[in-house]
Amino acid sequence: MKLLTFLGPAGPEAGALDPGGLIVPLSRRGHPALASLQALIESGEEGLALARDVLATEVGRVAPDSVTWLAPLPRPVQMRDFLVFEEHMRMAGWRGAQLRATWGAPPAPPEPMPIPEIWYHQPIYYKCNRFAVAGGGPVAWPGASQVIDYELELAVVIGRGGRDIIAADAGQHIFGYTIFNDLTARDLQFREMQGPLGPAKGKDFDGANVLGPVIVTRDELGDEPDLAMRALVNGEVWSEGRSGTMHWSWAHVIEHVSRGETLHPGEVLGSGTVGTGCGLELGRLLCDGDLVRLEIEGIGALETTIEAPHVPHRLVLA
Amino acid sequence: MKLLTFLGPAGPEAGALDPGGLIVPLSRRGHPALASLQALIESGEEGLALARDVLATEVGRVAPDSVTWLAPLPRPVQMRDFLVFEEHMRMAGWRGAQLRATWGAPPAPPEPMPIPEIWYHQPIYYKCNRFAVAGGGPVAWPGASQVIDYELELAVVIGRGGRDIIAADAGQHIFGYTIFNDLTARDLQFREMQGPLGPAKGKDFDGANVLGPVIVTRDELGDEPDLAMRALVNGEVWSEGRSGTMHWSWAHVIEHVSRGETLHPGEVLGSGTVGTGCGLELGRLLCDGDLVRLEIEGIGALETTIEAPHVPHRLVLA
Repeated sequence: MKLLTFLGPAGPEAGALDPGGLIVPLSRRGHPALASLQALIESGEEGLALARDVLATEVGRVAPDSVTWLAPLPRPVQMRDFLVFEEHMRMAGWRGAQLRATWGAPPAPPEPMPIPEIWYHQPIYYKCNRFAVAGGGPVAWPGASQVIDYELELAVVIGRGGRDIIAADAGQHIFGYTIFNDLTARDLQFREMQGPLGPAKGKDFDGANVLGPVIVTRDELGDEPDLAMRALVNGEVWSEGRSGTMHWSWAHVIEHVSRGETLHPGEVLGSGTVGTGCGLELGRLLCDGDLVRLEIEGIGALETTIEAPHVPHRLVLA
Repeated sequence: MKLLTFLGPAGPEAGALDPGGLIVPLSRRGHPALASLQALIESGEEGLALARDVLATEVGRVAPDSVTWLAPLPRPVQMRDFLVFEEHMRMAGWRGAQLRATWGAPPAPPEPMPIPEIWYHQPIYYKCNRFAVAGGGPVAWPGASQVIDYELELAVVIGRGGRDIIAADAGQHIFGYTIFNDLTARDLQFREMQGPLGPAKGKDFDGANVLGPVIVTRDELGDEPDLAMRALVNGEVWSEGRSGTMHWSWAHVIEHVSRGETLHPGEVLGSGTVGTGCGLELGRLLCDGDLVRLEIEGIGALETTIEAPHVPHRLVLA
């Protein structure tokens, strides 16, 4: 199933897409397990069965462009982002050093630096601001930043919670998959990451965590799906990759993060940027009015327009 | 007012302490604004006025040791931790290098390294796991870690939400203050922080974020309170400091974090460890059965017992 959240007359509603792409409203049935996608996720197999039943029997439809689509989980219970793609790890740090050099830091080395050994020993992650989640649409760029970038990521939504989940069982804890555009203010990020605590304001601003357009349930995509991913800026393909190039599988990500720690239904785990999946890696950053479209096979397309009246020219690194 | 959350016969309840230290139950009044401390915080001045009224008129009392105290906010809407104390910044990184040397990394430099320049330019923070919050009591140390530590911190709870809050107005967004014991698995932390994304599993495990015992409202402590802070391990004073030694004020912390980003009622912001406020800085780590007591003037004392059947001997750094 492809599940979404849209703005109905009385507020956010859960829906499912029928084979023709029309929205079958779920929440209007009045069942508590269908009140929202979070409620559906928490209700486990019962919620999924109910949703399938509504999808098969409901005759009412909502035209997809007649309503505003929200993020499938407009306020996830928690959200983390990993860094599982080796090429992004290799390139983004180096390009970041080049970027810093443009504002007076020492010159970057002539080629990418070695990846820290720890990256090969365990998945690395940080936690996102769950209040900064948005669906597709315009994002007002924060005034403090002049260097705008997108990140093309696949995200997993946890279904059944648990602790000390072993890799072999991890798939049973996946509810489904969505697209994540991890919008990043590169200037803020590379300044603050000279401190020891990782990214903060470079990723934390209203609308920075774009999720959607739908969550595709696990039964459609399997446990470690190898999906074509691409990003287009104003219709031009900038980024192309595959989720199958993940160095750390979802199974290992879930095993690692749940060690000694309880995962909850509805938590979102981002893969990190697929190789070449951001402007930084390509040496091309965004500017005002750019339309970023992220596509992942089997999920759909997620479009974001940058509204930032202060970055009129595209920054290009040598 | 001193506000707390305790486990009543029907689940968590909000309460306030009377001058004699007895609990005045708030939630039993049945008013939605007193259903929980989160509801009270969200209801703003109205909730505070209601709570004050109950405190003045209610005759029922609950003996404080007759109930289990939970964290005042058992599941904060969001939680971050800053790093505002210069001495901790200077010492913890160096001691971390010493610690790493004990498991085969290159030797640490002979004295503390310089603090990254960015730390003097802006507050630095990461986000905590809001599901890992606990009140005082036993914490089962995660099996993956062998190096146990506490961190003595003051935390602010946001009252009124807002975005782009300027420092001069920041005090009006503070609901109150609590104690934060940021339990840290130093071995996991210093391994993963060789990656670029900051602390993760070193801070993320069930029960790692100990908050309490009460939230003291802003009217009692003011906007930038200079409070005596200390930590005792098994009754012996290990750490002593003052919140007045914060390099970054709460006003600047709130200004920074709300730039381009909406803060919400009930968000928790930790100060980071006060200078000498953790075992690592002192070269002494914890072991099984240790009782850690954090005290902050005007708030109270927060006690945690380490339950970890696998670290029987205290690690001491040279």
